[in-house]
Amino acid sequence: MSAVTVDYRNLLAIDEGEAGVDPARLAGDLGSRFREAHEDVQRARRGGSMGFFDLPRALDAAARIRRAAAGLRGRFDDVVVLGIGGSALGTRTLRDALGAGDRARGTSAAAAPHPRLHVADNVDPHSIGALLNRLDMRRTFFNVVSKSGSTTETLALYRVVAERLARDVGPDQAREHLLFTTDPRRGPLRGLAGEVGIPTLPVPPNVGGRFSVLSAVGLFPAAAAGLDVTAVLQGAARMEERCRTGELTRNPAGVVATLLHRADVERGQRVHVFMPYCDRLRSFALWVQQLWGESLGKATGLDGRPAATGPTPLPAAGATDQHSLLQLFMEGPADKVVCFLTVDAADDPIPIDDAPAPLPAFEFPEGHTLHQLIAIEHAATAAALRTRKRPNLTIRLAKLDAGALGELILLFQAATVYAGFLYGVDPLTQPGVELGKRYVHGLLGRSGYDPPRMEEANHPWQV
Amino acid sequence: MSAVTVDYRNLLAIDEGEAGVDPARLAGDLGSRFREAHEDVQRARRGGSMGFFDLPRALDAAARIRRAAAGLRGRFDDVVVLGIGGSALGTRTLRDALGAGDRARGTSAAAAPHPRLHVADNVDPHSIGALLNRLDMRRTFFNVVSKSGSTTETLALYRVVAERLARDVGPDQAREHLLFTTDPRRGPLRGLAGEVGIPTLPVPPNVGGRFSVLSAVGLFPAAAAGLDVTAVLQGAARMEERCRTGELTRNPAGVVATLLHRADVERGQRVHVFMPYCDRLRSFALWVQQLWGESLGKATGLDGRPAATGPTPLPAAGATDQHSLLQLFMEGPADKVVCFLTVDAADDPIPIDDAPAPLPAFEFPEGHTLHQLIAIEHAATAAALRTRKRPNLTIRLAKLDAGALGELILLFQAATVYAGFLYGVDPLTQPGVELGKRYVHGLLGRSGYDPPRMEEANHPWQV
Repeated sequence: MSAVTVDYRNLLAIDEGEAGVDPARLAGDLGSRFREAHEDVQRARRGGSMGFFDLPRALDAAARIRRAAAGLRGRFDDVVVLGIGGSALGTRTLRDALGAGDRARGTSAAAAPHPRLHVADNVDPHSIGALLNRLDMRRTFFNVVSKSGSTTETLALYRVVAERLARDVGPDQAREHLLFTTDPRRGPLRGLAGEVGIPTLPVPPNVGGRFSVLSAVGLFPAAAAGLDVTAVLQGAARMEERCRTGELTRNPAGVVATLLHRADVERGQRVHVFMPYCDRLRSFALWVQQLWGESLGKATGLDGRPAATGPTPLPAAGATDQHSLLQLFMEGPADKVVCFLTVDAADDPIPIDDAPAPLPAFEFPEGHTLHQLIAIEHAATAAALRTRKRPNLTIRLAKLDAGALGELILLFQAATVYAGFLYGVDPLTQPGVELGKRYVHGLLGRSGYDPPRMEEANHPWQV
Repeated sequence: MSAVTVDYRNLLAIDEGEAGVDPARLAGDLGSRFREAHEDVQRARRGGSMGFFDLPRALDAAARIRRAAAGLRGRFDDVVVLGIGGSALGTRTLRDALGAGDRARGTSAAAAPHPRLHVADNVDPHSIGALLNRLDMRRTFFNVVSKSGSTTETLALYRVVAERLARDVGPDQAREHLLFTTDPRRGPLRGLAGEVGIPTLPVPPNVGGRFSVLSAVGLFPAAAAGLDVTAVLQGAARMEERCRTGELTRNPAGVVATLLHRADVERGQRVHVFMPYCDRLRSFALWVQQLWGESLGKATGLDGRPAATGPTPLPAAGATDQHSLLQLFMEGPADKVVCFLTVDAADDPIPIDDAPAPLPAFEFPEGHTLHQLIAIEHAATAAALRTRKRPNLTIRLAKLDAGALGELILLFQAATVYAGFLYGVDPLTQPGVELGKRYVHGLLGRSGYDPPRMEEANHPWQV
């Protein structure tokens, strides 16, 4: 019943002269190595550090989230998430893949339309100003999302929004336009929300930001926008079951992690391209980029030794980027693996009919649809890469719906923690961003933080 | 009078222990090598193969483009570009950087608003269907853009659009909703347009797709949307003048090309990150990605020998991706150079005031704006990377307007052809995409083309 298939034929050396992994190794050294990584992950799960695996079955939490979200319908036209990184990318993935926004509004004549969903994940005054100026504050709800409760950018956005809300609806009423999603035990958001009566939803303490899409972080705004979050969780649960086996060739996440890891460490293919042939999955590729890049890019190994590992995840979009990046993938350094994502079914495939006279029709083979064309573009590109000995794999979705998206999300989360153990690094941390945060505090003038040394404005090394 | 400054301090080894290039080499071997590349480019310009350098001063062509675009105002609410790759990315860059869309509409009560500008650059039936369903065909104009006149995806989109236009406005009237931008000498678009009376604009034969933004390819839709294309060209002309010198440290494009090339070939830093701290420049980073990746990723050198060169261009967005990619940049393999883009001035910096009671304010240093915060985020990130010996450079815009954008566009076009000669490859070709195109024709059933060999649907290498 799974909607997701991982096709890894083009990562294997089967026919004479092909590049890739010898398939005999799947039941040999790679299978053994994966079994160890699987056991490491199982151990970590039992130790309680990988809470994301349990979210698909956290049905009480999901019911609470759905109830909180249901209260917004009819009262608000717009929901804005203030969050950044893991507090934004998963929400945008759900919205863009499942079509909140245009489609969710006014689908039923009787019921009020679901609010539109926006994600504000930068402190650019131009884009924030443009967004806020478009909104009617009296009909807008803000979901402030920060696991730590102390994310500088998010708190800055909150202050800007709070001032506008207070001005347009009054400071007391403003509380009814706010919900904080944060750690249930600590942090500024948590503490102050309780004091003034702003509702909150928890991010489970053992669920990190980039693994939090199936917690309230992603599910509350998605449910508010009318998306079927129950089906997303059911899909994720199906994939979680498929990933319970330590047998490599039966575990989709194991195959993805093992073969991408091997491509990097054995053949120097450390640029991992994530390329959906489906515009609705462009945001998903950005979500994977954070998950894969931030989890595996580490200076220190689990054994405490210097590592400096980590593939570079590169999002791309098919068929579009065949006209932007394919030249490099085909002829540049052989340092890439392309992971395609395709969708088999289309609601409306759109026939490519002849243009009616007197309009010029141009020669075009008869009887095709846009849906067939984009499938052909993928097949041709995968085959061309294989001909040039450029490895690639394809993750096929039978259709793109809430269940399939849930499967895909869990697939990549599981693949990421497997890959962490294969690379020998802790996939759950991000120690490298602390220095930049300290410098931000220093430049903002916070006491206890030194700003970095800056060059004079008129130093000579500029042109 | 230039609005663009390249600050390359953080690519140099000046203080004890710093990574980067010895600054003495700028007047030494690197200066000599650049002078040769500059002379190669001058020779190619004289030979007529680098027409993009001349577009900023092609004022007759620009006037013709503006006249054609002016005729759309008041007659059409929406202009849709059908194009892909170099026929789309530059147009989107102009639109997103200069704010067509919301801002261009209804700026004057007397005059009709400028049309909204859309770019359709994929054959995904879901997104094309959603776009076409939102539009009123009677008030929509389509600009079909293809240098060769034979781009499969673009011709497929044209056929879909032609059918809808014929249905909604009639096949004869439909011609008044179309303009083809294509090679003036040849190709299907050119030939058929003349026969049936569809107007055309030329892409100069010596201007390749990814170098064509300052031709009718980008300027016609931009002018139709009300953008100041004259100021864009004036900015580009200013930068073209700055790039006439063979003296490395006085040539901004020379510095960018030389130092990024050296980072790659001397230190293995072959992932080149383009990271604007300005949401309006996100599309610009995608335009640079095509320009840099497709121009430099080549299997064969100018000397005919195997090359397999080419950096991997990675677009990112500041401050957002500090919460997605910075961990990898700081602690992963030292295989990257980050090229930041910043904007000094903001129209509305947006103060980060205290939230009014009873809303929680959270501790936040007094007196800052969002504009200052995003500047601080950039400064902190650049400094943190430098502390970790991760090289970076910053291209600063005094402000983001049409002139500054024109400068930036020409800067990167010139840097790209310099880099081509430094890498020893032809930056104007893309031979590697031909195999994929042949496979597409084969799978579409076109005679004379063989489809690739495909696996059986139920082959064993899937899970």
